[in-house]
Amino acid sequence: MSRHPIELLIEKADLAINREDFDTLIDIYSDDAVLVIKPGMNATGKAQIRRAFEAIAAHFNHKIEVKQTGMKILESEDTALVLAKTVVSTSDGLPINRNATYVFKKNQSGNWLCVIDNSYGHELFLYTDA
Amino acid sequence: MSRHPIELLIEKADLAINREDFDTLIDIYSDDAVLVIKPGMNATGKAQIRRAFEAIAAHFNHKIEVKQTGMKILESEDTALVLAKTVVSTSDGLPINRNATYVFKKNQSGNWLCVIDNSYGHELFLYTDA
Repeated sequence: MSRHPIELLIEKADLAINREDFDTLIDIYSDDAVLVIKPGMNATGKAQIRRAFEAIAAHFNHKIEVKQTGMKILESEDTALVLAKTVVSTSDGLPINRNATYVFKKNQSGNWLCVIDNSYGHELFLYTDA
Repeated sequence: MSRHPIELLIEKADLAINREDFDTLIDIYSDDAVLVIKPGMNATGKAQIRRAFEAIAAHFNHKIEVKQTGMKILESEDTALVLAKTVVSTSDGLPINRNATYVFKKNQSGNWLCVIDNSYGHELFLYTDA
C-alpha cells in the first residue's frame, strides 16, 4: 500500500527533530502555523516554532526522540486531520505516549503543510485559563 | 468573555441534531465535508451526511441528544481545530463521552464551516482496516 504524502512528511519532521535539523523541520510548517508547546502555551509562525524546538532540544539535553506508532488521516479537499499515536522519548524517564492531533493544508503547488501541531490532543483540557 | 463563532455554530448544530432539523444542520458543513459515522465508515458531502444523521436518529428511535461539555479551539488563519468533550445521550443506556475532533474552515465570506467531523477522536484506532 502506498503511503500518504502526509505520513512521509511527518516521518521527515520526526527525523528532523531527532537530528536537530531545524531548517528541514520548519519547512514542513505553513507561515502562520500554530504549535502547542505545552497546554496553554502556543508558538505561532516559523520563527517562534523554530525557537520552541531549539528550547525543547536544549531542555532535554539534546536527547529527544519523537516517533509515531500509528496514524489515521481524514481528508476533505485541501484539509486533512491527522490523529496519531505519538511517542516522545527523552533523557528524563519513561517514553511519553500522546494522542496527537495535527491539521495539514495543501497549498496551491499541491504540497501539504502543517498548519496546527497539537501533539497533546485532548490533554489541552488539563490546562485551564486563569 | 465573548464566545468564539465556532462555539456558537457547534451549539446550533447540536440543537439541530436534537430537534432533527437537518436543513439547519447541513448548512454548517462545507460541500465536501467528511463525517465519521463510526470508526471505519465515513460520509462525504452534504447529501451523505444528511442521510447519515437521518439514519442515526431513526436508529435511536428519535431520542438522541448531543452536547459539548468543554471545548478548546486552535486557530491558524482560515483553519481551526476543535477539541471537544462531547456527550451523546440516546435511548440505549448511559450517556457516551467522546473526545471529539472537528476541523472548521473559514470561507471567503468569513463564515466558518465544518470540513471534518470526527466525534470519535482517537477511537478511530479501535477500527482496523482488513
